[in-house]
Amino acid sequence: MKRTAFFLSDGTGITAEALGQSLLVLFPNCEFERVTLPYIDTIEKAREAVARINRACETDGLRPIVFDTVVNGEVQQEIRRSKGCMIDILGTFLKPLEAELGVRSTCTTGRSHSIAAKAYYEKRIEAMNFALDNDDGARSRYYDEADIILTGVSRSGKTPTCIYMALQYGIKAANFPITEDELHDQRLPDALRTHKRKIFGLTIDPERLAIIRNERKPNSRYSSIKQCNYEVEEVELMYRRERIPHLNSTDYSVEEISTRIMMMTGIERQIR
Amino acid sequence: MKRTAFFLSDGTGITAEALGQSLLVLFPNCEFERVTLPYIDTIEKAREAVARINRACETDGLRPIVFDTVVNGEVQQEIRRSKGCMIDILGTFLKPLEAELGVRSTCTTGRSHSIAAKAYYEKRIEAMNFALDNDDGARSRYYDEADIILTGVSRSGKTPTCIYMALQYGIKAANFPITEDELHDQRLPDALRTHKRKIFGLTIDPERLAIIRNERKPNSRYSSIKQCNYEVEEVELMYRRERIPHLNSTDYSVEEISTRIMMMTGIERQIR
Repeated sequence: MKRTAFFLSDGTGITAEALGQSLLVLFPNCEFERVTLPYIDTIEKAREAVARINRACETDGLRPIVFDTVVNGEVQQEIRRSKGCMIDILGTFLKPLEAELGVRSTCTTGRSHSIAAKAYYEKRIEAMNFALDNDDGARSRYYDEADIILTGVSRSGKTPTCIYMALQYGIKAANFPITEDELHDQRLPDALRTHKRKIFGLTIDPERLAIIRNERKPNSRYSSIKQCNYEVEEVELMYRRERIPHLNSTDYSVEEISTRIMMMTGIERQIR
Repeated sequence: MKRTAFFLSDGTGITAEALGQSLLVLFPNCEFERVTLPYIDTIEKAREAVARINRACETDGLRPIVFDTVVNGEVQQEIRRSKGCMIDILGTFLKPLEAELGVRSTCTTGRSHSIAAKAYYEKRIEAMNFALDNDDGARSRYYDEADIILTGVSRSGKTPTCIYMALQYGIKAANFPITEDELHDQRLPDALRTHKRKIFGLTIDPERLAIIRNERKPNSRYSSIKQCNYEVEEVELMYRRERIPHLNSTDYSVEEISTRIMMMTGIERQIR
């Protein structure tokens, strides 16, 4: 028995998806077909959404679950007419918040278009360009500007982490790979030595590293378990010798790696 | 009068931040100091969090607002002892969901470590590597694999959008710049012509483009308003002539651009 879950929003729907998904995974024995309905910001679009929800209700023979983050009162009212089980994510918390804060909320939509949001956007894009320009040791002359410099062996997760930190938090993250020669000599690259306070090391289980490298260069020395074992062992030794804070990324998503690094280093987000 | 808002979670805190932030912006006249407390997944960490919340309560002279997405019952119970105004984001909706679904929820933490999450992680990283490898027309021999190919003039937002679509949705997005020569001849690049169904065009207001380009190359021909006007006019003409679906990205965040492209093209997310 499959049921449809709708994530409905007057914006991107990303918050409705994140929260709805967090709730749905708590019901592992139920099967859901997931549908996102973004930009439902007029009565007309709301009516179309209601029609779609009601169709799913008939097809499934089960009431759809509708997670929504619509703020606008009229749109919200229209949506509530659907046959779905309505989870009004923002509305539910507005009353207790108004009571606590002692003021009424403003029901604005298009919130991300504010001037503050624009400044954040620029900061995020600037940080992302920084990550791309300073990826994989491409340049190190801008390390003065960096908030953090990730290091580690090839394919230990440096680039995705840098880009995620830029996009989500506006953090300027560079990354610099540690090569086999440097591992052999147990010598931190010069580009890093002068910015030692900013360095954070990533490490990864050798078995996992071998799988990832095999996707890039199958059956090569580079992707052999022997080579991966050697590199990981040496880089972890280097981290300990040089007292570089580090994290094993094996079991973590890119979000988790990023937030853990921020927690461990105390680096603050640059945007809100 | 400043009040502290806490985003508290047994995971990254990203969902608590997203929802809490969506609610706080509805109170534009209140000033909040925002603090994220991620990975509160033991009783001990919960007690430390409570102490921190209570300290803020004393310092501010106002009850902090605490948005939390903790699922674990014992941790949740401990947190509830704080002096903050508690917004229990997941717990609030669990009862109505259990009633509707007719089953009890499982109170699992560390949800993102599941096998499914691992597969998603790989898909996202694979998509991101695809975006990086196929950035700025660097290669076009993998366009068969692409879900979408973004095009547009230099600095119209192609790269950030590609990377965001990869990270958030696991979509393989390449991007290809349109050069001045091609604009002049009103000729779609050959690399794109063979994949016309996959092309999506970005455009941007010339004034905004000039500002962005000026940050990269100040006072150059490239960043002059005259040049930006010319390029934008020609590229929009090309989109219309070639019937390429397109979007003006000027007023949108990277999240909004991505979700709008998906809506306009019907491209589906590759991960859940």
